[in-house]
Amino acid sequence: MSRTRLSPEQRREQLLDLGVQLIADRPLDELSIDLLAEQAGVSRGLLYHYFGGKQEFLLAVLRRMADDLYAATAPVDHPDMAERLRVSLQNYVGFVRDHPASYRSFVAAALGGSHPDVRAVYEEARSALTDRIFDSASAEELAVFGIVDTAATRLFARGWASMVEDVMLRWLEDPRGITEEELIGSMTLSLGGVLAVVALSS
Amino acid sequence: MSRTRLSPEQRREQLLDLGVQLIADRPLDELSIDLLAEQAGVSRGLLYHYFGGKQEFLLAVLRRMADDLYAATAPVDHPDMAERLRVSLQNYVGFVRDHPASYRSFVAAALGGSHPDVRAVYEEARSALTDRIFDSASAEELAVFGIVDTAATRLFARGWASMVEDVMLRWLEDPRGITEEELIGSMTLSLGGVLAVVALSS
Repeated sequence: MSRTRLSPEQRREQLLDLGVQLIADRPLDELSIDLLAEQAGVSRGLLYHYFGGKQEFLLAVLRRMADDLYAATAPVDHPDMAERLRVSLQNYVGFVRDHPASYRSFVAAALGGSHPDVRAVYEEARSALTDRIFDSASAEELAVFGIVDTAATRLFARGWASMVEDVMLRWLEDPRGITEEELIGSMTLSLGGVLAVVALSS
Repeated sequence: MSRTRLSPEQRREQLLDLGVQLIADRPLDELSIDLLAEQAGVSRGLLYHYFGGKQEFLLAVLRRMADDLYAATAPVDHPDMAERLRVSLQNYVGFVRDHPASYRSFVAAALGGSHPDVRAVYEEARSALTDRIFDSASAEELAVFGIVDTAATRLFARGWASMVEDVMLRWLEDPRGITEEELIGSMTLSLGGVLAVVALSS
């Protein structure tokens, strides 16, 4: 049986997956082409060929993580918006639980202000995740929850995502007796709780 | 008329106020004892005597900013909890509008993960601000808004503060046609919106 030969694109994807694993155990700044070369057993020259340089490689790894998160939390096919949101949040919680250190590093690098490129990847992912909430529901469906699609509700949906992230990371550190199901239930209901009142005050 | 002689404590406070002004216009890392000496027209030796060193001085400035914010947003004496919260948030919005760059630098340094001491000052301020919401209201008052004081609602109150901060900083960058009054109104109502549903799902 011969080993399957990977295409350059497949090989690149595989290396990015390895990169995501590598940042799970160490700060972002310690991720390097040398480390990847050592772990993947390939030459540094080949990696520079694939990624260009350390900074480009790091960004590609973070973009991969953001894409994985986006894919993992894609709305399921269910007629009830609240149930779609609950499943997405369940998958979000699962994703962060599976990659706690990399997710934390990503968020810290994005919010710390000294990595504008990382911030851009993070903001892009955040936009995509929150805009999807509006784009995957009809105006009638949103109205059931008292939600109207306005500049203010979009702004607070972004804020809600910050709340979910904050609550998630604090819960991971110390669950305070709150079960995962309760956590996900509260995250789910809180979106409507926030957006319905925002629609009221504008 | 003779110049009033300041006590060492008053002099220290005055220097901290100047420090808060200095970080309004530049990144935290550029704040230094030398810069303060130059701006305040006092000797470096005296400043080292007051603050110990650059890092201690920076922390003292951030602590002063956190204290100023805490004082500025103190609950007013009003029988209605929603009105107390609205006034606190109005003062929060005013504070951040008056110190946009220093506030942003503070948040970035705290969330960036490479300044654990700054993070500690930030977390302490955040705890104080959100715990005060529960501590300044009776259980009966909270119940009017459907809020119960539990580990889950305290966790989500912290998350709500992240939402308010995120929304505030994004709104400052781009108000999207949302008036300050609408912003404050939505921030105010969103606390009850979040906490009432959290009480439901636990």
